Amino acid sequence: MNETIQVETIGIIHSPFKKLENMPVQSLGSQCAEGTVVVKGEFTDGLRDLGGFSHIYLIYHFHKASRTELQVIPYMDTEKRGVFATRSPLRPTHVGVSVVELLNVSGNVLTVRGLDVLDCTPLIDIKPYIPQFDCWQNATSGWMKASRSDVERRVSDDRFG
Amino acid sequence: MNETIQVETIGIIHSPFKKLENMPVQSLGSQCAEGTVVVKGEFTDGLRDLGGFSHIYLIYHFHKASRTELQVIPYMDTEKRGVFATRSPLRPTHVGVSVVELLNVSGNVLTVRGLDVLDCTPLIDIKPYIPQFDCWQNATSGWMKASRSDVERRVSDDRFG
Repeated sequence: MNETIQVETIGIIHSPFKKLENMPVQSLGSQCAEGTVVVKGEFTDGLRDLGGFSHIYLIYHFHKASRTELQVIPYMDTEKRGVFATRSPLRPTHVGVSVVELLNVSGNVLTVRGLDVLDCTPLIDIKPYIPQFDCWQNATSGWMKASRSDVERRVSDDRFG
Repeated sequence: MNETIQVETIGIIHSPFKKLENMPVQSLGSQCAEGTVVVKGEFTDGLRDLGGFSHIYLIYHFHKASRTELQVIPYMDTEKRGVFATRSPLRPTHVGVSVVELLNVSGNVLTVRGLDVLDCTPLIDIKPYIPQFDCWQNATSGWMKASRSDVERRVSDDRFG
């Protein structure tokens, strides 16, 4: 049970966000935030065929999260919630997942829209978003009552810094 | 760019699948495959409020993937595709993401349905699936032409072993 995994990053995400405050709290809230994903040159061949997908998952390291809190007050709530029932960066492994819109693939550089991560975020993986498998429309969302438009208006503060 | 991240696993996934062959190729294809997610006791408080969500993301380590291939022939295709345009385990960082149905939370043990991972898969993270943010219905899916029912019928072979 005490396995530690060594994960070598595959690239870096460049976004307009230089600090944790005033960022979108979901990729929904950053539909205008474009940026680039620079994959290490040695992995360029792995990007073939990615351009056919309009949306991709980015899996990344919350590199500015230096502590863990098992219960947090999420941006879209006023009560403490278990961290695994939230998207807070303060989770034990500091791993994040976002879906972003893929605008262009050129060599080892992706242009994307809908970023909700800090500039220079280390990239762990890229996966295609496949709507026929990845949309679970009838899922229930627990404490999260916010709508898409609620989230689009909300920006971060320093609570997870 | 050469950052290596040390990720300590947060638990283990128990599934009915003891070997790589004849497994479902997506969680869609394993709607009957129930199993348990055993989170390390020290993280139990982080599971509070998770039970309100019908579906959760599991982020995990493809612990039996011992190599990387930048181009692979996916299960649902006959042509080689860039590994980042697939869900193949043979990606550089060997990190997987699945959405499963959450049936029960009892202490540090989750009962889930829809597993497409090997028994004893090391768990990296759990996140809530939030349909109002996570469904991108109009996304396009590149080379992947398969429907939900195509995928439900398909099982794995040993190509990624």
